[in-house]
Amino acid sequence: MKMTIGDYLLMRLKELGIDDIFGVPGDYNLGFLDQVMYYDGLKWVGNCNELNGAYAADGYARVKGAAAMISTFGVGELSAINGIAGSFAEYLPVVKIVGMPSTEEQKSDIVFHHSIRSNEYDVFEEMYAKITAAKTILTEENAADEIDRVLTVCWKKKLPVYIGIPSDMPYKEIEVEIKPLELDCPTSNLETMEEASLRITKVLKLSKRPLLCVDLCAMRHNTKEDIEHLIDEIQIPFITTNMGKAYINETNPLFVGVYGGKNGDEAVNEFVENADCIISFGALISDLNTSMLPKSSSIEIHSNYVRVKNSYYYELYFHDFIPYVSNKIKKSKIKFPAFTLPKKEEKHFMIKADSKKIEQEYFWKRMGFFFKENSIVIAGTGTSLFGLLPIKLPDNVTFISQIIWASIGYSVGALLGTSIATPFKENILFVGDGAFQLTAQEISTMIRHNTTPIIFLLNNDGYTIERVIRGEKMEYNDIHMWNYAKLPKIFGDEVWTTKVSTTEELESCLSELRANDDKLRFVEVMMERMDVPEMLMKMVGKK
Amino acid sequence: MKMTIGDYLLMRLKELGIDDIFGVPGDYNLGFLDQVMYYDGLKWVGNCNELNGAYAADGYARVKGAAAMISTFGVGELSAINGIAGSFAEYLPVVKIVGMPSTEEQKSDIVFHHSIRSNEYDVFEEMYAKITAAKTILTEENAADEIDRVLTVCWKKKLPVYIGIPSDMPYKEIEVEIKPLELDCPTSNLETMEEASLRITKVLKLSKRPLLCVDLCAMRHNTKEDIEHLIDEIQIPFITTNMGKAYINETNPLFVGVYGGKNGDEAVNEFVENADCIISFGALISDLNTSMLPKSSSIEIHSNYVRVKNSYYYELYFHDFIPYVSNKIKKSKIKFPAFTLPKKEEKHFMIKADSKKIEQEYFWKRMGFFFKENSIVIAGTGTSLFGLLPIKLPDNVTFISQIIWASIGYSVGALLGTSIATPFKENILFVGDGAFQLTAQEISTMIRHNTTPIIFLLNNDGYTIERVIRGEKMEYNDIHMWNYAKLPKIFGDEVWTTKVSTTEELESCLSELRANDDKLRFVEVMMERMDVPEMLMKMVGKK
Repeated sequence: MKMTIGDYLLMRLKELGIDDIFGVPGDYNLGFLDQVMYYDGLKWVGNCNELNGAYAADGYARVKGAAAMISTFGVGELSAINGIAGSFAEYLPVVKIVGMPSTEEQKSDIVFHHSIRSNEYDVFEEMYAKITAAKTILTEENAADEIDRVLTVCWKKKLPVYIGIPSDMPYKEIEVEIKPLELDCPTSNLETMEEASLRITKVLKLSKRPLLCVDLCAMRHNTKEDIEHLIDEIQIPFITTNMGKAYINETNPLFVGVYGGKNGDEAVNEFVENADCIISFGALISDLNTSMLPKSSSIEIHSNYVRVKNSYYYELYFHDFIPYVSNKIKKSKIKFPAFTLPKKEEKHFMIKADSKKIEQEYFWKRMGFFFKENSIVIAGTGTSLFGLLPIKLPDNVTFISQIIWASIGYSVGALLGTSIATPFKENILFVGDGAFQLTAQEISTMIRHNTTPIIFLLNNDGYTIERVIRGEKMEYNDIHMWNYAKLPKIFGDEVWTTKVSTTEELESCLSELRANDDKLRFVEVMMERMDVPEMLMKMVGKK
Repeated sequence: MKMTIGDYLLMRLKELGIDDIFGVPGDYNLGFLDQVMYYDGLKWVGNCNELNGAYAADGYARVKGAAAMISTFGVGELSAINGIAGSFAEYLPVVKIVGMPSTEEQKSDIVFHHSIRSNEYDVFEEMYAKITAAKTILTEENAADEIDRVLTVCWKKKLPVYIGIPSDMPYKEIEVEIKPLELDCPTSNLETMEEASLRITKVLKLSKRPLLCVDLCAMRHNTKEDIEHLIDEIQIPFITTNMGKAYINETNPLFVGVYGGKNGDEAVNEFVENADCIISFGALISDLNTSMLPKSSSIEIHSNYVRVKNSYYYELYFHDFIPYVSNKIKKSKIKFPAFTLPKKEEKHFMIKADSKKIEQEYFWKRMGFFFKENSIVIAGTGTSLFGLLPIKLPDNVTFISQIIWASIGYSVGALLGTSIATPFKENILFVGDGAFQLTAQEISTMIRHNTTPIIFLLNNDGYTIERVIRGEKMEYNDIHMWNYAKLPKIFGDEVWTTKVSTTEELESCLSELRANDDKLRFVEVMMERMDVPEMLMKMVGKK
């Protein structure tokens, strides 16, 4: 059948579960944007700027499974590139679409606007090649095949891809054969599954202190049920890494804790260090995420291979391998020696409501009692992250923090993405004042689209996380003081904002928040400059 | 003598005339930032985000001659890259400094935060290699030589350069020999000067309708006096390109106008088309800047070569070649045939002060009477640019608009840069609401540093320039309506803001503006959605 290139691309995006597209218009992409507007079941979410759009797409992909973001050539795509690089670092399938000068324009000698020199039209796609898993520039001849190819890579590898559309292409009609995209994960090689499972069972049998660990890539590949089933079947204690936090129910009695390495809880560390066999799922080793975990991890289950000690098994995939190995272990009737989980500090927590200042330690513990199941909790990669990591979250909370890429300002854009993706969930963001200033205007887009997240802005007068690293009183760690609580009103009247300085005010605020869940809620929380979560002090070696 | 690498770099930056450094702190650059703070005569201008910082550096370089901008590795440098690409497209010497993971960290297998994969530390510098004229990563062994090399390239080519500093490098002591950087432009080859000048004189002698044209690169290389002297000596009529606007005194009786090609003034076009010899200075051909000018330009004087018809002369430089050729032509006693300059529409302009809406055509003409000499006028690349291009500006006005790179949002960042660079000049910005939303928070940095620019925010409810290109009523050209006039107060009390809807209110505002020149002034100008300057209508072929 005949179809325009633009519509074909949009049809394929819908197949990835994408219902909303982020981005900023520009003269090289307007034709395609018309097609977006008219495409049934697709919503355009215009962003204030391209970086915020890329962050939003990343957040959207974390909860919806995939996302798309459109910008114009040169200026637009370069403004977005840091956001897409983050998606590459942290395995998010984001489709970056770029409206380019037309085929004719690209052939001419003229320097068109948004170009750096004439005839250098591949400069930007080459930059993107370094942070995407596949790229293509559409032509009449290649469009259908190339769209299918790069979107399949995007979906299967859980990595961003790049699609360039010269401005004369969206309305070209092409002949296409319509069959669904081949998105299913391959089937694991049966013989290898059997061999690897036997080996894993054997290793586990010899273990006196086994431990299961869940990380980032296990989340991307939707393994929650299978892993929870495995834990349940073989009754193995488990940890998550920082980025794996809350993916597996933290109220499960077998949950040891979030492993923070030298920065983390000592009892959890001790348990991890005493383990003689760690079986990890989707582990992505990095300084802030997993610390030194890998060295002791004897079994690694990845999205497309498995390592058992020094043996590697390829062509194995989560979706059928986890149930297979789970079944195999169960049948082997392994019984692990008894173990005692580290005692959780279950001191009775006393809610305060007095005129004293809100301290970090108190604040995060208090928030632990505010969260509810099935919500989205986003932490800026600053004091918020280190404050929240030790707090136990209810089941089915999606915890989001950009721990590997750690781009300051990311969290505000991500919140837009998650609250567009899951408008009926409670979306809560914790962001410091320093980070907030980078991307603050995207609150306007949340209001425009009637999303109703809760934003806690932690005002501690500057880049506190950096102050504890270096330059406590240096000017470079200062920022200009804004009247934060009044900012959302600049973007629209239908918002609920407040500023709290004492535990009493905090309580009063928390009691009102959910009664106002038909609007965006913004809480400025005043905190001391150098009051930081214990975990952050450990990270910088000051505790 | 012995010196730390950090101090050596800062000493060299000062030699380029850099007194203020833009950027955002991050854990890989904090050590170097300490050195910036303690360096005598250097001011740190912390930006709200990195892209704004890069825009500010670009603006600063336009008026100060060079600029520097610091960010952290990965996240920070990628956020800034669009701004630096703009400096590359439009020839601005901006030194991009990046604090990187330490030499040890780069050797290890661990993925450090802000990295995409382990051992891939060159990904970002490779991206920058495409949009900078030179790059280096400092080591103890190469630091002094490499700093000198890349800064010299930056200065001479008027292009951005990239300097990566691993976090263990700033405090390393190196042995250096202190002699000033070799920044002088080379001397032109005397024989070639003679030959080219003779040829130019000969060509001009045969010309009945000669015309001089000044563009971008002539501005970058500080040729104003020499070109004005030449015009004066040989009494040749002149135009500027869009990017050359106002560089040569527009009140000079020999000024024909700004050449806008098919979008421009018809009388100017006719004069240009009838010219039989165009001698251009520093022309950079691009669609929005020069239109189709080059085809008829028979003599091109560039920063390092000259073309006369089909003969190329190399090793010729503006600084000595312009006076040389000027003298040669004068001595030849050429007398050009009499010519009549296009009649300027000198209708008496009547200032209105009634309750009618402010129309674009009126607004720009009115502003023509507001500007004063020696000021900075910045136009966003939207309706503001097309509104201001035809308006005659007083002498020594620096007119800034990013016409080739044309990055939406640039102008607000650039204003920060120019107002830091020239605090005693009147810095005026015209920016549309759509563009403003991208980088609005940088007003906070202007207030923080007590700069006192005037900002005219043209509120026409969306991306008007795009509405006239395509999709007048399409949702993608809508933006969320902010309460713009109240925004600056969120950032500080010491601002003067107002909102004007009628010509009466505009007059009252203009009469108060200069009386409040001790603070930042912000004027929201309400305009009709589809009211656009005539020149823009021509550009989109609608007039």
